[in-house]
Amino acid sequence: MSAKLPDINTHFSDWYNDVIYQAELADLSPVRGSIVIRPYGWAIWERITGRLDERIKATGHQNASFPLFIPESFLKKEAKHVEGFAPEVAVVTHAGGKPLEEPLVVRPTSETMIHFMFAKWIKSYRDLPLKINQWCNVVRWEMRTRPFLRTTEFFWQEGHTAHETLAQAEEEVMTMLGEYVDLAQSYLAIPVIAGPKPESEKFPGAEKTFTFEGIMPDGKALQMGTSHLLSQSFAHSFEMKFQDRQSQMAYPFLTSWGATTRLVGAVVMMHGDQKGLVLPPKIAPIQIVIIPIFKTDADKIAVLEVVNKLVVKLQEVHVRVHVDADEHKTPGNKFYAWELKGVPVRMEIGQRDIAQGQAVLADRLGMGKKSVALDNIVSEVTSLLDEVQNQLFKRAQEKRAALWHKAATLQMITQQMTAQNGFYQTGWCRSLECELKLKAIQASIRCLLEIAEFATCFNCNASSAGDVIVAKSY
Amino acid sequence: MSAKLPDINTHFSDWYNDVIYQAELADLSPVRGSIVIRPYGWAIWERITGRLDERIKATGHQNASFPLFIPESFLKKEAKHVEGFAPEVAVVTHAGGKPLEEPLVVRPTSETMIHFMFAKWIKSYRDLPLKINQWCNVVRWEMRTRPFLRTTEFFWQEGHTAHETLAQAEEEVMTMLGEYVDLAQSYLAIPVIAGPKPESEKFPGAEKTFTFEGIMPDGKALQMGTSHLLSQSFAHSFEMKFQDRQSQMAYPFLTSWGATTRLVGAVVMMHGDQKGLVLPPKIAPIQIVIIPIFKTDADKIAVLEVVNKLVVKLQEVHVRVHVDADEHKTPGNKFYAWELKGVPVRMEIGQRDIAQGQAVLADRLGMGKKSVALDNIVSEVTSLLDEVQNQLFKRAQEKRAALWHKAATLQMITQQMTAQNGFYQTGWCRSLECELKLKAIQASIRCLLEIAEFATCFNCNASSAGDVIVAKSY
Repeated sequence: MSAKLPDINTHFSDWYNDVIYQAELADLSPVRGSIVIRPYGWAIWERITGRLDERIKATGHQNASFPLFIPESFLKKEAKHVEGFAPEVAVVTHAGGKPLEEPLVVRPTSETMIHFMFAKWIKSYRDLPLKINQWCNVVRWEMRTRPFLRTTEFFWQEGHTAHETLAQAEEEVMTMLGEYVDLAQSYLAIPVIAGPKPESEKFPGAEKTFTFEGIMPDGKALQMGTSHLLSQSFAHSFEMKFQDRQSQMAYPFLTSWGATTRLVGAVVMMHGDQKGLVLPPKIAPIQIVIIPIFKTDADKIAVLEVVNKLVVKLQEVHVRVHVDADEHKTPGNKFYAWELKGVPVRMEIGQRDIAQGQAVLADRLGMGKKSVALDNIVSEVTSLLDEVQNQLFKRAQEKRAALWHKAATLQMITQQMTAQNGFYQTGWCRSLECELKLKAIQASIRCLLEIAEFATCFNCNASSAGDVIVAKSY
Repeated sequence: MSAKLPDINTHFSDWYNDVIYQAELADLSPVRGSIVIRPYGWAIWERITGRLDERIKATGHQNASFPLFIPESFLKKEAKHVEGFAPEVAVVTHAGGKPLEEPLVVRPTSETMIHFMFAKWIKSYRDLPLKINQWCNVVRWEMRTRPFLRTTEFFWQEGHTAHETLAQAEEEVMTMLGEYVDLAQSYLAIPVIAGPKPESEKFPGAEKTFTFEGIMPDGKALQMGTSHLLSQSFAHSFEMKFQDRQSQMAYPFLTSWGATTRLVGAVVMMHGDQKGLVLPPKIAPIQIVIIPIFKTDADKIAVLEVVNKLVVKLQEVHVRVHVDADEHKTPGNKFYAWELKGVPVRMEIGQRDIAQGQAVLADRLGMGKKSVALDNIVSEVTSLLDEVQNQLFKRAQEKRAALWHKAATLQMITQQMTAQNGFYQTGWCRSLECELKLKAIQASIRCLLEIAEFATCFNCNASSAGDVIVAKSY
């Protein structure tokens, strides 16, 4: 039996760690900063990757696999890139019992390796666009780690594409950003803002970085993934050239985009409550748990016979169903355990229900128990799952609305943020000097917006170049 | 346009490397011994992993994820294990800009890490069996590497299970061996022998190792994967103990089993021919390529209209179809290119065919072209795909039969092997001394058989303890 979870309102950070361990999403590992992702956590990730992989392929990309190790010299080929990543890489210096001639870096991201290969493959405009994706592990030696949100080893997909024209590369960057937003909102039920990062927060070596971020219930922003328009310096560094339609040698325009296991952490934070996880049905490994109610062995046999038929019916329409017929636990203990694990819908069914041709359905959001006819079980369950998915997104939108503030000046932001973290919409002149003032309140500019409600910068008197979101962040 | 492939009969090894690069399965990488797996190669691996993952789950296992890095001290906990793997590990000595207190080994396999976690999770017999699988990359610093067959980094699944009783662990080992054999034979169309390895060839730290091996067209054996009954020393090393049904503390019985990207190499070798790859339909990324035949633009539009309808029909029954409508290549060049890539079935269709309500189907095995009615296209294509799958397996069985020899003595094996590599069935007394005599002819005992046609050992006069297979190997 697991211990009570810390108070989600007063101790959100402790609650987050505890729920992850208690619900068996992950466990601490003996390697600093790395976690073990347990079957229940990995099953959620498999649901997310399954959907994203489908969309990556549907938008014309192909999966491939590039080496885990990158020669140290590769990282140095793009000046800003090495500056960004060199301090946090893990380095293999020995292998096969001998020191290596050139140390190998464990990939923190694969631009350099993939661009080296692109340079071999791209000869003519006919080889473009080249649209590649890789699902893999990467390593960044972070000082402060938290399960799923920031770990030294993590899992992600990294898309890498090359295009004939800047316009095509820009379109690619926005297409994939759009796919991420759709994944976040339609699958993870997390409303996000999406837009450009300020210059100071760009990916090392990128021309433009676009982000999509959610606002967590504690009012902190969570960057959930990014889509980059890379500078041409990457193409230059690797002498990636092609013969264009005018038979001239030209450099392709590159993009890269990635989303990570951090998405699992986002789901945990966004939807969880005092009882534990709350999983959106679209990514829940178990969508409905059936708890048969019985007192005698004869009861058990009779109830399970009906339950097994229901299971078949539900599986026929691809509902992910689990029956908890464990005799060593009371129904109450089971309710508690499956609530902790965030299963969206629970069915309770005993002899009395069966006699009346019905079963009881309860949803994880507490919208209310109801008796439903066994004859309609498939439509009742599937429509309840849809309702839970929709309701979760609606609730998340309401949470965000309550945490979205407007503030014209640094002073107002500072004052209000002391009372409550959140997204602070404001104006900004785009100067680094003004941006850096936010460091004092541990906040940053998360994203540029397409609206302009504020005329002047939050810090100086200069006119604003468009609204931005200021927030503390994970 | 790719160059002609080396002669498959006289230069099998060169042919193998060339076909992999020309068919774009993989490419050399700038990291010694690592390859880049290109989209076409990775798509084959995804077909294999998709099927195997389905079976791993259907047999009651759950996927999880354990760290890439293993503390060096872990590897040393099991004496034989460290002896086996220490010489070939890659070691991270620096990370985050500093030397590490304890070096981290890049996992060559994950027994030690997973057993450490198992020891935390297993408390009671009720926690057993614990059946976990991991899909991941591993690194072994091999001296001589070949694409897919032996690379420093490779991909695999590693299953790790813990059981209450020895009998249950033994059953698990055989169940998964059976799944591998089914995958090899029913999916990859490769006939295999499966059975125990001799003591000298066991996995470091295992009690028993079972292998499944194919015989490649050049007469060399290829170990395609293994299933191990681990010694209890692993459980002892990690103090993995549980309370059994009699409330006594006991050590669980462990297994591990794995299959790798080497399976892609096996398919290439087993079925390829002078024209290139030949892919079994069940794992072919493209099962049928449609080559529309046209001379004018009007022709093209009319033909493609019909072709697009056929594509929809075929996709409805999940046939993986690709249309090659490239105007810059002749049909002949397309035939050549798709033969190189091993696409099992080709359809040719032009205005004249359409007028007659038919299309031409050709199979990659050269069983013969035939005209088929467009109205029956789905059944014609699916039955031809089945036929190619079956025929490939049959041909592979015939190749194996021709390479399977019997020989009573070392002298006979030596003599015959000089003329032709192959599986040499013989008797063996089970002594290491006799086994080592095979080193002189670069051969080894690949697998113990359940039959006993030979009364005495191939080397000494002692009686044989059962037949074995002797072969050279990859």
